[in-house]
Amino acid sequence: MAITLRQQDADFEQRFSAFLTTKREVSADVEAVVRDIIARVRAEGDKALVDYTLKFDKADLGALGIAVSKDDIAKAYQTADPATIEALKFARDRIRSHHQRQKPKDDRYTDAAGVELGSRWTAIEAVGLYVPGGTASYPSSVLMNAVPAKVAGVERIVIVVPATRGVINPLVLVAADLAGVSEIYRVGGAQAVAALAHGTETIMPVAKIVGPGNAYVAAAKRQVFGTVGIDMIAGPSEVLVVADADNDPDWIAADLLAQAEHDVSAQSILITDNAEFGKAVEQAVERQLKVLPRAETAAASWRDFGAVILVPALEASLPLVDRIAAEHVELAFDDAESFLGRMRNAGAVFIGRHTPEVIGDYVGGSNHVLPTARSARFSSGLSVLDFVKRTSILKLGPEQLKLLAPAAIALAKAEGLDAHARSVAIRLNM
Amino acid sequence: MAITLRQQDADFEQRFSAFLTTKREVSADVEAVVRDIIARVRAEGDKALVDYTLKFDKADLGALGIAVSKDDIAKAYQTADPATIEALKFARDRIRSHHQRQKPKDDRYTDAAGVELGSRWTAIEAVGLYVPGGTASYPSSVLMNAVPAKVAGVERIVIVVPATRGVINPLVLVAADLAGVSEIYRVGGAQAVAALAHGTETIMPVAKIVGPGNAYVAAAKRQVFGTVGIDMIAGPSEVLVVADADNDPDWIAADLLAQAEHDVSAQSILITDNAEFGKAVEQAVERQLKVLPRAETAAASWRDFGAVILVPALEASLPLVDRIAAEHVELAFDDAESFLGRMRNAGAVFIGRHTPEVIGDYVGGSNHVLPTARSARFSSGLSVLDFVKRTSILKLGPEQLKLLAPAAIALAKAEGLDAHARSVAIRLNM
Repeated sequence: MAITLRQQDADFEQRFSAFLTTKREVSADVEAVVRDIIARVRAEGDKALVDYTLKFDKADLGALGIAVSKDDIAKAYQTADPATIEALKFARDRIRSHHQRQKPKDDRYTDAAGVELGSRWTAIEAVGLYVPGGTASYPSSVLMNAVPAKVAGVERIVIVVPATRGVINPLVLVAADLAGVSEIYRVGGAQAVAALAHGTETIMPVAKIVGPGNAYVAAAKRQVFGTVGIDMIAGPSEVLVVADADNDPDWIAADLLAQAEHDVSAQSILITDNAEFGKAVEQAVERQLKVLPRAETAAASWRDFGAVILVPALEASLPLVDRIAAEHVELAFDDAESFLGRMRNAGAVFIGRHTPEVIGDYVGGSNHVLPTARSARFSSGLSVLDFVKRTSILKLGPEQLKLLAPAAIALAKAEGLDAHARSVAIRLNM
Repeated sequence: MAITLRQQDADFEQRFSAFLTTKREVSADVEAVVRDIIARVRAEGDKALVDYTLKFDKADLGALGIAVSKDDIAKAYQTADPATIEALKFARDRIRSHHQRQKPKDDRYTDAAGVELGSRWTAIEAVGLYVPGGTASYPSSVLMNAVPAKVAGVERIVIVVPATRGVINPLVLVAADLAGVSEIYRVGGAQAVAALAHGTETIMPVAKIVGPGNAYVAAAKRQVFGTVGIDMIAGPSEVLVVADADNDPDWIAADLLAQAEHDVSAQSILITDNAEFGKAVEQAVERQLKVLPRAETAAASWRDFGAVILVPALEASLPLVDRIAAEHVELAFDDAESFLGRMRNAGAVFIGRHTPEVIGDYVGGSNHVLPTARSARFSSGLSVLDFVKRTSILKLGPEQLKLLAPAAIALAKAEGLDAHARSVAIRLNM
């Protein structure tokens, strides 16, 4: 059973605040182990990768090779279910179309003073994508990370993925190939992150590393940050469904459980203005749990972190929605557009009764890599912008320099930076 | 004397690689101290701020007050030099005009399948800006951080600045006021970052913290990251000047020294195709050093990290320029536009002989907060984008859901996520 909070109760603010700050994940302290792994990969290169892979992934890279070959990819296509390959292509095309609209435009202009200014966007030259092994090895995540990089114009897109006991999910290889990934290596863990950041004999270094991973991978990304760029560190996933009583409780329960089945630390929250409806959804959750293959995970998540929040009117939930700042927000009621217009914080919003969040996980076209754990207050989902960077441009002639010089010199002197003042003044014989 | 590297020498690649990886800053290990400070501010709030400020800044907030008052700001206007105030206004207006062009546009559209997709940008609700004390207390940096936040639409812009021995640079207060900052507090160091992230009785928490600071401030920002967003961690500053022999050696030397006077770990690099010109610039540097107030700092920077790189033709420097990925790049030769068109990595580019980098520090209009230490390979300077975040939007009707459902269900099943498949199927009675 999830907890129930009533906005009109006297202790609501206190209980809601406590709910918001509940930690859903304990991060293991793996800093020191990771530091050693990175140092050894820097010192020994491929040899360290082979050793660590034998130890952690029980795979012999001496026999398999560090790099995945074209043959391996061809075999993956033969192994994979053809209908699933078609579904991946369908998803790839939709993701590509949507992300093409995100490409930022260069801007170059001359202002009233005759000064030329500009912003020029260029793709990052090489990007590494970490793909987890085992059950968390999601081909959809390969598309969600690699397609925006490709759209951005990244030349080298490199995947690292652990081959646990020698095996890589063939759908991961197919998704990588469909997305236009250039290189794939059979390494995982902190050692893979170290190889991407610092390079080895086989793996050329990249400029930025993205993609989800376990505590070791997250710690390694933090440690190499600066040498390379990294994406946000993903936390446990969450959904917030705001629904009125006109919804089918079974539909809403299914959406809450789709989130809960991800992980015991996932979080599903229902906000409704109708206590009866809230009860009906809770009952539907219990019923559906009985037939779910991943019921154990989903039940634990719902029990430990799930919540039903009762509000006097959906309108009253607006400040709560912004404070929760959920990764996924479903607005399942009629006037959702007006509500959305007044919302501030959410990773992604799914509007209406026929837009289950799961569509966004796979084939909506928008990205499923989204800010978790309230970070939608200050950050955005993955996009083409994560694979480009901006150079600013300034161009003055002698007339413009003369015009801007007095203020520049005044400010440089006020800040005690005489060489700054001089580099302007010297050009004007001042 | 800076080092000289010749691209045509046999050992160039080796020496250039070593030069690129030279560490210019040793970061002190202050993690544990900072952890304690943050814990105490969380536990004791304002009281901890008062205690730490007495200890570290020798200022009595019991008497002065934590918050800077309107009276304090009015006094700052009276104290400051009127010409400098005018220069700040001039800079503020130019920065504002340029950054207004950076506001991202919402995108909402219906694709061929009838699916509605969108990206909606909203301002971060509250942002904290750290301003260092003492000699590094630059009013220009207040404008460069606060103006883009204001343009983005951030409602609460909060400055923290240490009042060393009770004193805050009046120009910092004037710049904050001109930029539209909402609140200013007399606290600095890790304790100020902790207060911004977690809040105290006097200081309401913010959602993101930006601005430069010392090792304690940088460590505190890293530690509160996740609770709040942070900007990049700024490293030592650098300039790369690419110049032919048609330049006045004194002008170029002045530009190299403007960078070098910032800090002993700043870096100034000249690339030229003319060895005689390189020598002339080096001689000009030595001459100018004799009259500079900050000669000691500038000389140390030039001696320890400065470089003159000789290339057979400026064209040949293109790959070197991209590998250096400098914060500031001056292109002081005739065909700079074509060169720029083929460059990939730079924080900001200054074109032609009349655009000294210093113009960009103050009054060009572009931002002076730029990626340092080769991070222009993967990141961009500060902009309006740092103060907004994007929510993605998806909206399907029953027809669109029917169309997308088969691929979504196939992928969910392939990933072993049955509750995902079910949340789509249940809406179609599948």
